[in-house]
Amino acid sequence: MIASAASTRFLSDMFRRIAGGGRQRAANGEDESLDLVEACHRLLTDHGEASGLVMARRILDRLEALERDERQDILVQIAATFGPDEAKLKQAIANWTPGDVTTARALHFAAEPRSQALIRALNRVPGATARLVNLRAELLSCLAARPQLAGLDLDFRHLFLSWFNRGFLEIRHIDWSTSAAILEKIIAYEAVHEIQGWEDLRQRVGSPDRRLFAFFHPAMPDEPLIFVEVALTADTPEAIAPILKSQRKGLEPDQATTAVFYSISNCQKGLRGVSFGSFLIKQVVEELSRELPGLKRFVTLSPVPGLRSWALAAAKSGAVPQLDEASLALIQALEEGQALSDDQGQQLRRLAACYLLEARRGAGRVADPVAHFHLGNGAELEAIHLNADLSDAGQTNAWGVMVNYHYDGAKIEERHQAYANSHTVAAKSALRALASS
Amino acid sequence: MIASAASTRFLSDMFRRIAGGGRQRAANGEDESLDLVEACHRLLTDHGEASGLVMARRILDRLEALERDERQDILVQIAATFGPDEAKLKQAIANWTPGDVTTARALHFAAEPRSQALIRALNRVPGATARLVNLRAELLSCLAARPQLAGLDLDFRHLFLSWFNRGFLEIRHIDWSTSAAILEKIIAYEAVHEIQGWEDLRQRVGSPDRRLFAFFHPAMPDEPLIFVEVALTADTPEAIAPILKSQRKGLEPDQATTAVFYSISNCQKGLRGVSFGSFLIKQVVEELSRELPGLKRFVTLSPVPGLRSWALAAAKSGAVPQLDEASLALIQALEEGQALSDDQGQQLRRLAACYLLEARRGAGRVADPVAHFHLGNGAELEAIHLNADLSDAGQTNAWGVMVNYHYDGAKIEERHQAYANSHTVAAKSALRALASS
Amino acid sequence: MIASAASTRFLSDMFRRIAGGGRQRAANGEDESLDLVEACHRLLTDHGEASGLVMARRILDRLEALERDERQDILVQIAATFGPDEAKLKQAIANWTPGDVTTARALHFAAEPRSQALIRALNRVPGATARLVNLRAELLSCLAARPQLAGLDLDFRHLFLSWFNRGFLEIRHIDWSTSAAILEKIIAYEAVHEIQGWEDLRQRVGSPDRRLFAFFHPAMPDEPLIFVEVALTADTPEAIAPILKSQRKGLEPDQATTAVFYSISNCQKGLRGVSFGSFLIKQVVEELSRELPGLKRFVTLSPVPGLRSWALAAAKSGAVPQLDEASLALIQALEEGQALSDDQGQQLRRLAACYLLEARRGAGRVADPVAHFHLGNGAELEAIHLNADLSDAGQTNAWGVMVNYHYDGAKIEERHQAYANSHTVAAKSALRALASS
Amino acid sequence: MIASAASTRFLSDMFRRIAGGGRQRAANGEDESLDLVEACHRLLTDHGEASGLVMARRILDRLEALERDERQDILVQIAATFGPDEAKLKQAIANWTPGDVTTARALHFAAEPRSQALIRALNRVPGATARLVNLRAELLSCLAARPQLAGLDLDFRHLFLSWFNRGFLEIRHIDWSTSAAILEKIIAYEAVHEIQGWEDLRQRVGSPDRRLFAFFHPAMPDEPLIFVEVALTADTPEAIAPILKSQRKGLEPDQATTAVFYSISNCQKGLRGVSFGSFLIKQVVEELSRELPGLKRFVTLSPVPGLRSWALAAAKSGAVPQLDEASLALIQALEEGQALSDDQGQQLRRLAACYLLEARRGAGRVADPVAHFHLGNGAELEAIHLNADLSDAGQTNAWGVMVNYHYDGAKIEERHQAYANSHTVAAKSALRALASS
Repeated sequence: MIASAASTRFLSDMFRRIAGGGRQRAANGEDESLDLVEACHRLLTDHGEASGLVMARRILDRLEALERDERQDILVQIAATFGPDEAKLKQAIANWTPGDVTTARALHFAAEPRSQALIRALNRVPGATARLVNLRAELLSCLAARPQLAGLDLDFRHLFLSWFNRGFLEIRHIDWSTSAAILEKIIAYEAVHEIQGWEDLRQRVGSPDRRLFAFFHPAMPDEPLIFVEVALTADTPEAIAPILKSQRKGLEPDQATTAVFYSISNCQKGLRGVSFGSFLIKQVVEELSRELPGLKRFVTLSPVPGLRSWALAAAKSGAVPQLDEASLALIQALEEGQALSDDQGQQLRRLAACYLLEARRGAGRVADPVAHFHLGNGAELEAIHLNADLSDAGQTNAWGVMVNYHYDGAKIEERHQAYANSHTVAAKSALRALASS
Repeated sequence: MIASAASTRFLSDMFRRIAGGGRQRAANGEDESLDLVEACHRLLTDHGEASGLVMARRILDRLEALERDERQDILVQIAATFGPDEAKLKQAIANWTPGDVTTARALHFAAEPRSQALIRALNRVPGATARLVNLRAELLSCLAARPQLAGLDLDFRHLFLSWFNRGFLEIRHIDWSTSAAILEKIIAYEAVHEIQGWEDLRQRVGSPDRRLFAFFHPAMPDEPLIFVEVALTADTPEAIAPILKSQRKGLEPDQATTAVFYSISNCQKGLRGVSFGSFLIKQVVEELSRELPGLKRFVTLSPVPGLRSWALAAAKSGAVPQLDEASLALIQALEEGQALSDDQGQQLRRLAACYLLEARRGAGRVADPVAHFHLGNGAELEAIHLNADLSDAGQTNAWGVMVNYHYDGAKIEERHQAYANSHTVAAKSALRALASS
Repeated sequence: MIASAASTRFLSDMFRRIAGGGRQRAANGEDESLDLVEACHRLLTDHGEASGLVMARRILDRLEALERDERQDILVQIAATFGPDEAKLKQAIANWTPGDVTTARALHFAAEPRSQALIRALNRVPGATARLVNLRAELLSCLAARPQLAGLDLDFRHLFLSWFNRGFLEIRHIDWSTSAAILEKIIAYEAVHEIQGWEDLRQRVGSPDRRLFAFFHPAMPDEPLIFVEVALTADTPEAIAPILKSQRKGLEPDQATTAVFYSISNCQKGLRGVSFGSFLIKQVVEELSRELPGLKRFVTLSPVPGLRSWALAAAKSGAVPQLDEASLALIQALEEGQALSDDQGQQLRRLAACYLLEARRGAGRVADPVAHFHLGNGAELEAIHLNADLSDAGQTNAWGVMVNYHYDGAKIEERHQAYANSHTVAAKSALRALASS
Repeated sequence: MIASAASTRFLSDMFRRIAGGGRQRAANGEDESLDLVEACHRLLTDHGEASGLVMARRILDRLEALERDERQDILVQIAATFGPDEAKLKQAIANWTPGDVTTARALHFAAEPRSQALIRALNRVPGATARLVNLRAELLSCLAARPQLAGLDLDFRHLFLSWFNRGFLEIRHIDWSTSAAILEKIIAYEAVHEIQGWEDLRQRVGSPDRRLFAFFHPAMPDEPLIFVEVALTADTPEAIAPILKSQRKGLEPDQATTAVFYSISNCQKGLRGVSFGSFLIKQVVEELSRELPGLKRFVTLSPVPGLRSWALAAAKSGAVPQLDEASLALIQALEEGQALSDDQGQQLRRLAACYLLEARRGAGRVADPVAHFHLGNGAELEAIHLNADLSDAGQTNAWGVMVNYHYDGAKIEERHQAYANSHTVAAKSALRALASS
């Protein structure tokens, strides 16, 4: 049985699936002995489009009914045997003329592994898309143990990039009038600031000064792909707790000047590599601007997930020149949970600035994944806040530090280009100065 | 300006597009000098996903605003210059190991022409899918004159096959409560038995004993892809006029024993090569069976579009042994519009049987396209009717002959397999005898 | 069989009703002998709420299946016999204390004729509301011939006033995406400027610079109650033809400064005496103001339905002092279809001003019903146009004259009050001067 | 501030209302001094329909913003001063001719208190219906203390009976795809077997073998009026706990033979006297029968709310002959919480049978309200179960006793008539014997 991404809570789903599975098994008793790989081959060679639907459904049902290991074994066999037609490929290579688009394209089609055709054929079954996304989620989860699945994963990724094209997605405003079936998934999928139950959820989607937007794909109408949570405020927030607390004094939306993106969560593990985030943010900016002309600023309140592990590694390796004696002492104090002096606070802000602006991955992009995301979208690093996220995760990842990124309409494109072309980081000059002090 | 498939009637669409275009031109005055090919290159090399949306929209707007010839020139340039990365492709060929799936897949990806990425990038614009389908429709219309577009057409076809996968389509029952915007397209797209206006349409979609089902894609919610018209009857019909006439005595749906598929129309020229018909028929059989358990038979009343041209050609060439003297006399009588004797009527039926069962295309499939479609779906040729379609088209294509194909649930799969594997045609033995008499 | 208000065109409705009726008769053969008046009594005395549904449905079905005369006979019997409980009423009168609300209310309830309870009981059947509205339409149509139905009509009117309370209505924007089932009713119900078919309809609902809004009741979701047609323009129009013509140069909605209400039609004859017009106009002003902030003026282009008949009567009677020699000559010229001189044109405008401002009904309200409606809503008479409606109706009713009423937001309330309290007519001073010249 | 029926949980509603109220007060500062009674008079005398909307909204806003006592004072003034027009009433009485429907009807209309017109005028404001229902709920809550409101209550009741006519209601299947805004009201309104939170709710609405149906009025789209919870089972249940428990082995709906109505809750206190229950049950039987042809039995598992109080009173008064020595001992044992012997168990069943079948209210209807409801709908008392409801409420009201009523399609009408006409109770003969033993 494939575990759904956000497993244990979806009892109703599970129930239905088990029940359905049971009925399936009862009805198709013979399927227990269905040779899945053979059936997949027949699915591709048979010329009847509609009759293939029945076979495709049987294959999906049977695959899901298998034990995890058995299912992965089948995937490995498929990965190994559904390559391209060797003879045609050989011929296409022979025909290829350098610089000629036509023979190159022929080569492209000849080299297409039949596993792609197989995935497309399985997708024809109504409702199959979500099942294929779950199948890839499992594939990804066992990729380390079964590296021979890497190619099949590329096929999934290639097709999902095409199928989940931005043009096919729809944005929805999730609020308290949304169905419980979707809302419980929001609870389950929130990955940044955990939702503590239905009352907490209502605070986040039902309050007039809170918004939640999500992308959906029409073939998976009850499954959010990604969502962003927004707080409408009068000021740029410096900590997460006031945003999340349940007994707040609300703000009339038309009094708000600032929209704060305080949480962005990808929902589908099976869609790794298919990115929706920047499209979502740009569209939410558009939607909110239209609805609330009083909004003047769009900022984030974001975690710094890599700060602590970077600092600890840097302290160990000594490879970062800015990590002077004081920095090392600070890190030790932080690790021992000591209260910080004002000076140490300032030092921690300097450490964070240094990490965000200067720590890079090989290619030159900044090391912090959240920073990379927002800077790549054209935002500017605006402020660094201490004691801003006192949750376990906030402490474990960044000693409580959070930051604001600012999306300034007029400069987004220019900043995006500068980062895209040369990894130039947009940051307030004070932060830049801090980092290099 | 791209003409939409069913052009002249869609005044409201046109109006909107012209207006929008005008606004567009006013707003983006500089776009008149936009270098489209250069813009397409930038769209692919720029790393910003969301900023690309603006550029993609500008490219689509500009492309559509061009004159037909200019636009086709641009397509030719794109076809010529958006091939794969030559260096990577060369390397992938060098790496390829015969029999190895991994290097073959790498070759597949390396050989992908960038024109595919370009089409995917353009599709990100909300509403772009329908515009790309229209673009391909134009491309197809000029393919004979500009054969260098053939490769780009393959890219479109490849992507459309993936995007318009059966799993993404939704079936809708079109009736008199459907929006006028969709109904006017049904009028425009009906390709078999022309709809004579709104009253005729109401007869076909609003009568209790008539049904119309269509497939839609979520990204083109107002554009039917294919539709089938169904009459619920007490008997298998032998002519089309009684089905289409406006003053009929209606049948209570629950009194019907027979569902007659009397018209199937593909709506989107730009989706040539992406076939929906067999899925639609099977699903409509399912829907109707569920709703009306009294239905016992599913048959068609179908045209024989290739009969006359085949017979005339055969008469000329003398290549068909069955065309004896009597046949030639019959053909002459038909061409001269003489009334037929009973014997001649029987002879015309024999000629039609002969054509449907024995005329083949090279590969062995039957020559008549409608016969090929239904036989390939597992139907059986059941009856041949004279004077069944007295319209101009019916006379011009088949001297008024129409036929019934019968979808017999229990035998569909077997017949489909027999035809798919060896082009064995399922036909009533009387018709078989007639053909070989 | 009750004819629906806009009868002959609704073939699909008719078909369904006939079919249903047939089924009904077949199934409930015994109903032919159902004693309807007796059944109505049982419906009221039986204490079972749900079992009453079956009886109520049978009564409605049987009533509708009767011939017109028979049905009206039944209504007369109901009117005569479903009065209040005499004993209780007598007692309530005896108990009544002048000035005491409690005994007055008791009297009110005791005096309620049981025909009201009967109508409420019939309405419980799903879909019955529209059938009861049709029933009253028939009742109204025969009221002159059967005056004994007047009381039953009051019961219907009283209940409909309560049921069709503004708070229960919903406004809908009717456009080209509206269902054909509703659009065909718009065609049928347009009472001011006839709609010439589907192309004309599309011009009126599908053009970006045209709007149509209607009120609906939730229990009659496919039946508009009233609708108003709006043209978005750059100027105040002086004639109807340019608004209705099919080949217009459209205006971008956001360029419009003026919203012109050029047609208002009540749809349900059975709702006579339940007025929706002023609510609809006020709400449409609100909707349009919100959507198009550029709109500065809300005016009508209205017929003057009573002008000619008033003038002819006045000419005959000599009772209107303003009708001098010249006026009489003008009227004769108009009746003979002569072309008017400029002077005569001005004289016709004077005649119209005189009629609109000074002709009154007994109580003081202006005589022209359209003028009464708009003035009562707080509009001002702004301009009088010659040759503005050249249709047969326009000539027959008002020798082609049309007028503009102006809804000036700041003054609507004051003008409404002035007219409501003392029938003071708001009109441009030039028109006032013209009338008294 | 009017407390909504299920008050404290609806934080989001409250929030919105408070916020709205605040805005209201800010915007309409002068309203604090609005003379409400005077404003109500103006609302009725003013002739402008649409301008009345503004005044009506102000009245409602102001009424709701008042403190409870002030608001009730206003209601008392309205009740006292909005009687009928005395002069007209006097005249109508004088005109009345005994036996004449016309003058009786005139009297009815003349006697109508203007408070009814006032309520209708207030209802014109969009969304007002729910507010008026809440207003009556408050009125009912203070009726004992302010008996002079009784007449005004009758006006509300009379209008609500008309507005909430069965023909205007819609049934909805509430499930896990229903909006959270409605589901939280289901949690709040469940009055029989409390819902313990969202997980419990999901068990009741999301499990394949559980159903929940509710009636809604279109003017209150988010407010259920009444709902019934149904369990699909293989047997008639004898206790409530197995139905409510969270870890159940589910049943495939198409395996179910029995539909158990285990909870019916009225939601709107302000609709007291407007009964929906029997309509709902009959319609749910219809819906389920259509969906699940395998269902053979429709039964309830019902509380016996009046058993214990009746028995205690009877024991005290000695007025019930069947209460012999043993009964009195049993009651004492029950009150002391002793475990019952088998004999005592049987005696308790006898006591319950005796209560259900023989305890009557004055008019002859059975004393138990739930029994009265189901017997009145045509059900039969089928079985009595001990230890069937171990909750506090179950013990307090009925020492844990529950019963089944059986809705037997063929006999419903006859039983309903027998009870309606002569209060004849349908009960299994064994129970009848038990009661009289």
